[in-house]
Amino acid sequence: MYVLMDIMVSPSGIGISVSPYVAMCQKIFEQSGLTHTMHGFGTNVEGEWDEVMAAVKQCHQTLHQSGAVRITSHIKIGTRTDRDQTMLDKITSVESKLTSS
Amino acid sequence: MYVLMDIMVSPSGIGISVSPYVAMCQKIFEQSGLTHTMHGFGTNVEGEWDEVMAAVKQCHQTLHQSGAVRITSHIKIGTRTDRDQTMLDKITSVESKLTSS
Amino acid sequence: MYVLMDIMVSPSGIGISVSPYVAMCQKIFEQSGLTHTMHGFGTNVEGEWDEVMAAVKQCHQTLHQSGAVRITSHIKIGTRTDRDQTMLDKITSVESKLTSS
Amino acid sequence: MYVLMDIMVSPSGIGISVSPYVAMCQKIFEQSGLTHTMHGFGTNVEGEWDEVMAAVKQCHQTLHQSGAVRITSHIKIGTRTDRDQTMLDKITSVESKLTSS
Repeated sequence: MYVLMDIMVSPSGIGISVSPYVAMCQKIFEQSGLTHTMHGFGTNVEGEWDEVMAAVKQCHQTLHQSGAVRITSHIKIGTRTDRDQTMLDKITSVESKLTSS
Repeated sequence: MYVLMDIMVSPSGIGISVSPYVAMCQKIFEQSGLTHTMHGFGTNVEGEWDEVMAAVKQCHQTLHQSGAVRITSHIKIGTRTDRDQTMLDKITSVESKLTSS
Repeated sequence: MYVLMDIMVSPSGIGISVSPYVAMCQKIFEQSGLTHTMHGFGTNVEGEWDEVMAAVKQCHQTLHQSGAVRITSHIKIGTRTDRDQTMLDKITSVESKLTSS
Repeated sequence: MYVLMDIMVSPSGIGISVSPYVAMCQKIFEQSGLTHTMHGFGTNVEGEWDEVMAAVKQCHQTLHQSGAVRITSHIKIGTRTDRDQTMLDKITSVESKLTSS
């Protein structure tokens, strides 16, 4: 089951700046080999369900080990059975409607 | 790793009424033995990480098998290492602040 | 436009315990006269669009004035034009599918 | 109050393809003059609170008028009082941690 995911990780108990912790998760996605793109409120990640979920779990574990005593992640998970679709396909589909009208 | 989760499952391609599909996921949480409570925009589920995530995956698989060609789930995942906390603890903590002030 | 909303408010820069801040928002919803119910990962609120959004804005303003330097809210907003529906209707609809099967 | 927002609009009752409806919201953000960037699971929008929220309301109204009988939006709203920050600042902050390590 191929999944398109969006994840925003919010560690707390580590002060106002969360960017070093977000960077740790980025490295985990990088090392996982999964396609991923960061935006202003999270990161798009895509791949097989079990691999994507393993990366999410590793992210929570790593941040806890690095001192974040409390973590909340906000995740969107999309699966479909009618056809294959990548994250890029979704964006291209909307953009084609914008330029054609 | 104990996790407090909130999940809202949105199947599409099956008409306006999604309640029969939401009910399928409720049954999966019921059969999983995980503590769970439904609210107006999702369901709170708590338990060990792997068990909770297995239920989420089973929910997507079951809904696809039942005709939903596209599913998007919106999930909140909370973990903490400083102390044990249940979903009920969180609610009680806020309510105690409301009554004491 | 009648709206069913779910809101989870996450203040940061105020330590690990966020329950006193969540309680402040609960009081705002209480004083607004809007129907609202707290759950383990947020609060369901329903009413007219402008009134609901005014309460959300007041919540951010109040928490900033109380010392939260950074606030992130996660909000779900549902509107529909085919029929009237309350939050309770949604829950009852799923529960009827559970008991009838 | 300056706000960084992320919004994913999910219309239903209009078939599987939601991209024409997502494109309508993109045009509203475009016409509003607000800074905005689309990603695979939504759109980052930033600006003054009232202007951003007016665009969200207009998006729901326009989609209903275009035939979507039911709309659910998933929104993240970030405000902070300690310093000015744009969406681009957030991304740059994480990227600097990635390259420096």
